[in-house]
Amino acid sequence: MATYLKELYCPKCNTTYDAYRPQNLCECGTPLLVRYDLERLAGEVTPQVWRKRPEGLWRYRELLPVIREENMLSLGEGGTPVYSLDKVAGEYGLKKLFLKDEGTNPTGTFKARGAAVGVGRAKELGLKTLAMPTAGNAGAAWAAYTSRAGIKMVVVMPEDAPLTTQAESVAYGADTYLVKGLISDAGKAVREACAKYGWFEVATLKEPYRIEGKKTMGLEIWEQFEGNLPDVVLYPTGGGVGIIGMWKAFNELKDMGWLKGPLPKMVAVQAEGCAPIVKAYKEGKDKAEFFQGAQTIAAGIRVPSALGDFLVLEAVRKSGGTALTVTDEEILSAWSHLAKTEGALICPEGAACVAATKKLRETGLVSSEESVLILNTGAGMKYTELLKEKAKLLETGSLVD
Amino acid sequence: MATYLKELYCPKCNTTYDAYRPQNLCECGTPLLVRYDLERLAGEVTPQVWRKRPEGLWRYRELLPVIREENMLSLGEGGTPVYSLDKVAGEYGLKKLFLKDEGTNPTGTFKARGAAVGVGRAKELGLKTLAMPTAGNAGAAWAAYTSRAGIKMVVVMPEDAPLTTQAESVAYGADTYLVKGLISDAGKAVREACAKYGWFEVATLKEPYRIEGKKTMGLEIWEQFEGNLPDVVLYPTGGGVGIIGMWKAFNELKDMGWLKGPLPKMVAVQAEGCAPIVKAYKEGKDKAEFFQGAQTIAAGIRVPSALGDFLVLEAVRKSGGTALTVTDEEILSAWSHLAKTEGALICPEGAACVAATKKLRETGLVSSEESVLILNTGAGMKYTELLKEKAKLLETGSLVD
Repeated sequence: MATYLKELYCPKCNTTYDAYRPQNLCECGTPLLVRYDLERLAGEVTPQVWRKRPEGLWRYRELLPVIREENMLSLGEGGTPVYSLDKVAGEYGLKKLFLKDEGTNPTGTFKARGAAVGVGRAKELGLKTLAMPTAGNAGAAWAAYTSRAGIKMVVVMPEDAPLTTQAESVAYGADTYLVKGLISDAGKAVREACAKYGWFEVATLKEPYRIEGKKTMGLEIWEQFEGNLPDVVLYPTGGGVGIIGMWKAFNELKDMGWLKGPLPKMVAVQAEGCAPIVKAYKEGKDKAEFFQGAQTIAAGIRVPSALGDFLVLEAVRKSGGTALTVTDEEILSAWSHLAKTEGALICPEGAACVAATKKLRETGLVSSEESVLILNTGAGMKYTELLKEKAKLLETGSLVD
Repeated sequence: MATYLKELYCPKCNTTYDAYRPQNLCECGTPLLVRYDLERLAGEVTPQVWRKRPEGLWRYRELLPVIREENMLSLGEGGTPVYSLDKVAGEYGLKKLFLKDEGTNPTGTFKARGAAVGVGRAKELGLKTLAMPTAGNAGAAWAAYTSRAGIKMVVVMPEDAPLTTQAESVAYGADTYLVKGLISDAGKAVREACAKYGWFEVATLKEPYRIEGKKTMGLEIWEQFEGNLPDVVLYPTGGGVGIIGMWKAFNELKDMGWLKGPLPKMVAVQAEGCAPIVKAYKEGKDKAEFFQGAQTIAAGIRVPSALGDFLVLEAVRKSGGTALTVTDEEILSAWSHLAKTEGALICPEGAACVAATKKLRETGLVSSEESVLILNTGAGMKYTELLKEKAKLLETGSLVD
């Protein structure tokens, strides 16, 4: 297969790097991005070529960095459904409200996309041991794909990471460790160990290929809405890889001439207890500060400091979007409401976007005429330990006594 | 849209029933099946029409019993991936081993298919309250789709049903009850309550539409293997709706002239601690007896008595397949092995089929030249409470001390 992979580049200082050797950050400390030969790609491939392939992430292979077919690791990732939330749309005074459900990915979250591409490329580059800190789900996903690739994986999680993700990571055979504290403490342990043992660090944005996997969410949205993109896309923002990836996808499609018309307004949603990017957005800053005392039930967005903060802020601002917070109470309430009215048991992070949609309508930041897409990043069934209501025991074994 | 739905019929006594009124069993106590006008369908629709629609269950709408678009309830069910298990194939001496992963359905199991169609048709027929006994996953799935449909749902589970499925059913707003004992005890409670309160009973095969949803697994296999069906399909058999449905699908396609050549050999896999159908198969019987003292860690196949036993036995025999058991130890071992070698964390029921594949090769019942497809019915992350290995706590917070 022809590859259109060209080079890696730093979005801050513009230094370029060889994409055929393992790379972490730019020398200036900035995450690297992947550049393709988009002109040649647009001349040699058409959207019809993609559409004829089975749904899923690898349908977009020409715009992905994995070159050899045997490294396109697949457990059925991507091709996730979009469905409408008509009842909730009515309640919020919206004509069109959609949800893209990443919970139907293998390992139950959108992290599978980043892992499929990140691990596939790591295999292609000959890497033998990968290590990462994680809030839980990325660890589970990377454990799955490294198992498939035959690569050794070391995962470090906060002690209170969701139990399901701990068990998954272990089950896939990754060396799985817990630390007291936050994901930043797990990050420190991984950094030290990589320096000492020569493992390749794959923490969020410390390598350039995870974004490429996440980017496919944007490619799918473009296909699924067939030339009529939603006006607003809400994304629960922890490390921010998904929003950076989707924004990159939309712009690559635009550069290739495959996407015309305005791009969606990108909205970054964070929890009130951990909102570094919202704070920076409101203060007009280009970078976020470390958020002290980070606290929220939505573990995936409990990220006090994100390497890609400046890219998230750029996507939000350039797209004409916004950044806002919701409280844990609002998350829990929206979570329960969506399951009981729409039959959608999403993840707490996705529920944060449902609550944020309500706020955007109440404040008038989104009009009733605008179409809104919520990105749900994971399956609710991974978080049932957070649900308080229980089934009732029928002591007599009968419902008619 | 034109409908090809014709009537319901009893596969035992051939009595026919009106498909436009709610129906449970035939008067003779047998599950009813759905009949379509296949000749007219084959004349008016083509496989290309299906292929052009987005992947998922409703792509096959002409061969499904839901007529009006608004009753085609969707949370993104179906369109599940098939991927190869090359390492395990090598170990077992098979050239081609595939897994179809139903774990990527909403609610994490193949039960979503039966629920989407069963609840959709119940809505279309104006039913207000549904009730079912369940090992867990069917309850979660029907709770999700009744929530979406705005229909009241009552779910009764054994007290030891997987915790995740209990929590899901409650979260979706179903009235969820636990009974001491087995699914047969839950069944008794539901039967009594339906008789007293006029609820519509949707226990396995007590209504004819769940099979139609499950049938779409067969339609997808036919599409995914493009005229070159696997030689052998292994299915973990509890109530047996999936194997009955797939067999019905293959035969409908054959009757329409859309499928040529031999059909796959259908293999029913059960646990040694609950094997009514395997026992009947070995004894040459057409029906199974109640299996006393049913016991297995794979809750989905802990079904001591199945209404559709005779249909499962028919599919197995007519297809030239077989029925066999595996022990819980073999299930656990295959489960762990698949996660660690292929990156696939499937459900214990699916793992039973992996273990059974090994046995079929060891006994020579499947040759190295035959292609084998394992039907994995659910996501492993719903069963992490069964996994014994744990993550290790880094007391010092460091990996390099």
